[in-house]
Amino acid sequence: MRFDVFSLLPDVLRPYLEASILQRAVQNGLLEVNLHDIRAWTTDKHHITDDAPYGGGGGMVMKPQPIFAAVEGVLGSPPDCPVILMTPQGRVFTQQVAFELAQHAHIALLCGRYEGIDERVRQHLVTDEISIGDFVLTGGELPALILIDALTRLIPGALGDPDGAMDDSHASGLLEYPHYTRPPEFRGWGVPEVLLSGNHAEIARWRRAQALERTWRRRPDMLARLTLSESDRKVLARLEAEQGAADGADDNEPTLTTGIS
Amino acid sequence: MRFDVFSLLPDVLRPYLEASILQRAVQNGLLEVNLHDIRAWTTDKHHITDDAPYGGGGGMVMKPQPIFAAVEGVLGSPPDCPVILMTPQGRVFTQQVAFELAQHAHIALLCGRYEGIDERVRQHLVTDEISIGDFVLTGGELPALILIDALTRLIPGALGDPDGAMDDSHASGLLEYPHYTRPPEFRGWGVPEVLLSGNHAEIARWRRAQALERTWRRRPDMLARLTLSESDRKVLARLEAEQGAADGADDNEPTLTTGIS
Repeated sequence: MRFDVFSLLPDVLRPYLEASILQRAVQNGLLEVNLHDIRAWTTDKHHITDDAPYGGGGGMVMKPQPIFAAVEGVLGSPPDCPVILMTPQGRVFTQQVAFELAQHAHIALLCGRYEGIDERVRQHLVTDEISIGDFVLTGGELPALILIDALTRLIPGALGDPDGAMDDSHASGLLEYPHYTRPPEFRGWGVPEVLLSGNHAEIARWRRAQALERTWRRRPDMLARLTLSESDRKVLARLEAEQGAADGADDNEPTLTTGIS
Repeated sequence: MRFDVFSLLPDVLRPYLEASILQRAVQNGLLEVNLHDIRAWTTDKHHITDDAPYGGGGGMVMKPQPIFAAVEGVLGSPPDCPVILMTPQGRVFTQQVAFELAQHAHIALLCGRYEGIDERVRQHLVTDEISIGDFVLTGGELPALILIDALTRLIPGALGDPDGAMDDSHASGLLEYPHYTRPPEFRGWGVPEVLLSGNHAEIARWRRAQALERTWRRRPDMLARLTLSESDRKVLARLEAEQGAADGADDNEPTLTTGIS
């Protein structure tokens, strides 16, 4: 998979790409990330990439010329791959969007900075807009890295463990079950007996029930989107019954609003 | 505001902190970010930070000892600031959560890697868990940077423009209106007349209507949470009427599902 990333700060992206799973994917020829400095495509003496907004107001706006020149200079006109603007105005990135975008062999990512980007870039160059969440950041660089990280994990062979990506929170539609590793006792805190039992069917049942319970307590919105098995529904019915009893006794109810049980 | 970040890959975080607004905030004494390598707090000869999960399954789990040692070694026991685990299982980060967390003068961020983190860390050390979205990443490092970036923008004086943070998408509860800068014509594509008019009241009305329309087309879920003025409601009523007419004529309906109009 190939990414071309257009940014005013390409150097802040590099170290993350040179570590861990992304580095290995690059070394194994599974991933190629080309970083492009938009400023290198300015044509004026001072290499200006931003200017004041028409109509006034605070902040600066990224000029259209260097962005068009950079993207078209690298990818041709029009580019034959999606050109995605990372912006809080885009559609919200989820694991489902990651699966969708992972179908492309080549993606261009455009990182905004300053107050925003000239609207003509959005209208005439960009083909998709992605937001990674409802919050305000200084630029699109971290969102671009997040998209690259999430998509690289979906490239066959990029993870050491072929099933590694499937158990993760959000890949299965449930939050993950709790993990424990050695020591079996740490500061007097143990490990659930079932995990030490060697009974793999029992362990699988426990983990599924834990994942269901955690999702039910923290993210009930995710459960609504899932197809549940008969035994899943039994687990949830038990939780509902326990909560009903606790509500009646007015103690220890799960605090769904904070999300942390 | 002070952050202590605990990670197995602290070096990948550094360049982002040394650029742009974060760098300026550090130089101006508004922001302090200390990066801590969890591996430095291992006690075994090989500096092992992960181990196989009890109960089997793919991936590796971060051991409790180095994490407790790192966090307590730096911050004391128990730490007197929130210890936030960046995890897809946490509550979802939004601009509202950013405003809430910005009330703290000091925050510790714990970045998971591998399959997950020993549950006893979550139970006995972590005081809050934050997810930046419903997707799977390799580690908590990018989410930690995102949190630091979003919170730094809320420190009084960190942005050059004191009103800069207020107009941004999500800060106001609406997506931002379109921005334009010079040239007034680029490849034959102009700038809306109103922005060149000098009539500031008219420009403000146009921008508000554009922000409302963009939010209505792309993120109707955000509108539901807003308190709207009388004139806001008129703008939305006009959009609804236009859509009704277009639906009747069966052409040009806004494509709310893709989010890109």
